[in-house]
Amino acid sequence: MMAKRRNEIHYVTIMIVLCSSSNSLVCGGEWEGTWRRRVAEEDEAVTTIACSEHGRAYLDGLILDGNIQPACECNQCYSGSHCSNFLSDCVVDVTRGNLYFLEPFWMQAKSAILVSGWHRMGYSYSDDSYMSQLLVQYIKKLHITLGNAITEERYIIFGSGSTQLLNAAVYALSTNSSLSPSKVVATAPYFPMYRTQTQFFNSKDYRFEGDTSSWKNISDRSSTRFIEFVASPTNPEGKLTDGVLHGPNDKTIYDHAYYWPHFTPIPSPANEDLMLFTISKLTGHAGSRFGWAIIKDEAIYKKMLTYIELNTVGVSRDTQLRALKLLNVLLEGDGREMFQIAYAIMKNRWTRLEQIMSKSKHFSLQELYPHYCTFFQRVRVSTPAHAWLKCERQQDMNCNEILKTVGINGHEGSVFGADNRHVRLSITGSQDEFEILINKLTNLVAKEYMDPNLINLHN
Amino acid sequence: MMAKRRNEIHYVTIMIVLCSSSNSLVCGGEWEGTWRRRVAEEDEAVTTIACSEHGRAYLDGLILDGNIQPACECNQCYSGSHCSNFLSDCVVDVTRGNLYFLEPFWMQAKSAILVSGWHRMGYSYSDDSYMSQLLVQYIKKLHITLGNAITEERYIIFGSGSTQLLNAAVYALSTNSSLSPSKVVATAPYFPMYRTQTQFFNSKDYRFEGDTSSWKNISDRSSTRFIEFVASPTNPEGKLTDGVLHGPNDKTIYDHAYYWPHFTPIPSPANEDLMLFTISKLTGHAGSRFGWAIIKDEAIYKKMLTYIELNTVGVSRDTQLRALKLLNVLLEGDGREMFQIAYAIMKNRWTRLEQIMSKSKHFSLQELYPHYCTFFQRVRVSTPAHAWLKCERQQDMNCNEILKTVGINGHEGSVFGADNRHVRLSITGSQDEFEILINKLTNLVAKEYMDPNLINLHN
Repeated sequence: MMAKRRNEIHYVTIMIVLCSSSNSLVCGGEWEGTWRRRVAEEDEAVTTIACSEHGRAYLDGLILDGNIQPACECNQCYSGSHCSNFLSDCVVDVTRGNLYFLEPFWMQAKSAILVSGWHRMGYSYSDDSYMSQLLVQYIKKLHITLGNAITEERYIIFGSGSTQLLNAAVYALSTNSSLSPSKVVATAPYFPMYRTQTQFFNSKDYRFEGDTSSWKNISDRSSTRFIEFVASPTNPEGKLTDGVLHGPNDKTIYDHAYYWPHFTPIPSPANEDLMLFTISKLTGHAGSRFGWAIIKDEAIYKKMLTYIELNTVGVSRDTQLRALKLLNVLLEGDGREMFQIAYAIMKNRWTRLEQIMSKSKHFSLQELYPHYCTFFQRVRVSTPAHAWLKCERQQDMNCNEILKTVGINGHEGSVFGADNRHVRLSITGSQDEFEILINKLTNLVAKEYMDPNLINLHN
Repeated sequence: MMAKRRNEIHYVTIMIVLCSSSNSLVCGGEWEGTWRRRVAEEDEAVTTIACSEHGRAYLDGLILDGNIQPACECNQCYSGSHCSNFLSDCVVDVTRGNLYFLEPFWMQAKSAILVSGWHRMGYSYSDDSYMSQLLVQYIKKLHITLGNAITEERYIIFGSGSTQLLNAAVYALSTNSSLSPSKVVATAPYFPMYRTQTQFFNSKDYRFEGDTSSWKNISDRSSTRFIEFVASPTNPEGKLTDGVLHGPNDKTIYDHAYYWPHFTPIPSPANEDLMLFTISKLTGHAGSRFGWAIIKDEAIYKKMLTYIELNTVGVSRDTQLRALKLLNVLLEGDGREMFQIAYAIMKNRWTRLEQIMSKSKHFSLQELYPHYCTFFQRVRVSTPAHAWLKCERQQDMNCNEILKTVGINGHEGSVFGADNRHVRLSITGSQDEFEILINKLTNLVAKEYMDPNLINLHN
């Protein structure tokens, strides 16, 4: 609260300074409030009017040859210059974990920023770092408000999304020994980036070694450093989990991308040695590429700092300014508004999904778990970002192929180190996208009963 | 020119749409022009008034405990809440290559952007890429206007500064063979990141192998892939150079960070297979972390795309929007204004530097070369971003230590793979920083003649 108040005073002071200057234009009494609000509303107006509420126009939208209209970028299955044509036979792609369901919140929130042409041109902030210390303070305040992570006496480091931090963490935790590279493992089904990124960088210091289960029963792991990736909640399933390897030489990277109240009950603040978070699953701003790590050990923190410096010389200062504004909006008032809205939407989506899928004998969803949530102060079930759909019938070995017959394209289970009886369906997209998915799933389940061909085929 | 005009029409269209809406507040006839200009001027006013023209306040400046004033971030050797105290005995740090000399240009240019809260929340653009195709078009137009690189029938890829692209290029050009990792080389004095980054990632696929000269006389290099880093102009010296290794299995990464008319004559458009550029040395926006590669070969392009995707999932879309605006301003009118201003400043700085150093027998600067510049359409000498200062006397083995006696801290030659008789001094900082540097160098040279102790010590 103090930081917020100070911030307000800061703006007031700027206004006083301006109003004592010779520039009378800027001293209308409502300078700060008026233009920002007006501009935000104008941007919203453009989108709403031009794109039939099934798409949006951006300032940097591609202007096609000969097209002098603002270029609408349409939601899936909508087309036309104003996104007004619905393509009923389209394939809805739910592979990508965009959080467009939060877009309406950001359209109404006063969350625009102005970046002046001379904003932070240099390499470093005034403390010679690549990180805004004000943003560090906001992140700490956020975790205190949410109660989802301990930040006292911890180091915080920024990355270009948690993606960049995944490998930075692997680097920092690995031992520098070419004889015995560190073994990187994860429990299937796991987020595929853990494998692809670790393999891609092809370092002498670490190697991806598959599923954790292959290694947990080896009694002596002291000769090799193990680095275990643990997503909690898991991606794809959305379950709260713990690490499996707890030997003296084992290290764990906790990926808490989804550890926010709109996706999971928060039983207690996470307190592990190395934790990763990302704005993409918090506010939904995946395009901004901003994540952070919370680290106990100073030596690990410093190694990760070196990684980020040599890789990209820190995170874009423009992005840091934007993240600051977004967190500022989140923390307004009691800091609960967005989470209440976001949870209500996710809860509603899961209720509808389960209602449909409960009628099916051929398909099932993962089980949702109830838990006491310290943020909402009551027991609630999880509302994961993804449906982990399973084809139950023996012959349906490739579940995504079955889904494609009704126009749904999900992520195949094998991508996550699981079998292809499973498919991940992202349910955090726009309302349009979710409605189309629901319609297609309804058709799919209805066919179990109504379509004689499908009954023959599937029984 | 066409893209610019289309853009203007685009904005006009937005205004018309807005003015036909119910929101009468926004339809004053000068909506677009008024608020943007006003806001930019206000931001400038804050800086000027609050920080005595020796510093600046940013929107995301750290608000210190108990300090309700806008927090000024002072230029080097200035302090106080309004940056009004000059610290005459301070050490001026000229190690970092910030281009604050361009800050006044961006303060007067109409270059602010507004990023709405809902701007590009998703992972990808409408074409499923992580790159704004409009920005690709602007970059091509920029190179055509400048005449400094061929972009027709080339692929363009973005990075978080050219820093990220350096390693992406090494990855893409290296052969995937653990038996014989590719050898990465550079000719000293070279930009230290070539070495530190290549060593840091410690890949099985490539290894830094020092100075190119050690390898150029080996007649048969066919069994090993060589990857040569060539900066042109070089960093630190600012010379136009070519690669040394031209065997059938040799590959070259051309780092053209400084290949802009404010730093070098442009003899002809660069036309190499793999070229890197960065906005940090073009517009001076190092903090935005934006660079690009121009690539001939599709397979190399695709490998670099994979690198950027697995490393950071592309470049921040906020940064791409800002880069778009900056290039849009650069290309206004005949696209020459900033370059003319920037060159005039650099030319003036070099004239003053050379005037002072020409009086010295103990110190010398690198030679500047004259060349026909196709951009300015006349012969001109180079105006590099860095002075490469040499201590000429035999006993002055560590030149930076000598400079420190008068309060100058530069980058030691050994950092660039050269000897410590050399020091790199960045001369692209703010006018304050340059004036302080000039004063201290004047003192240094004056001491050769006036100070009997120094004469005894140095002769």
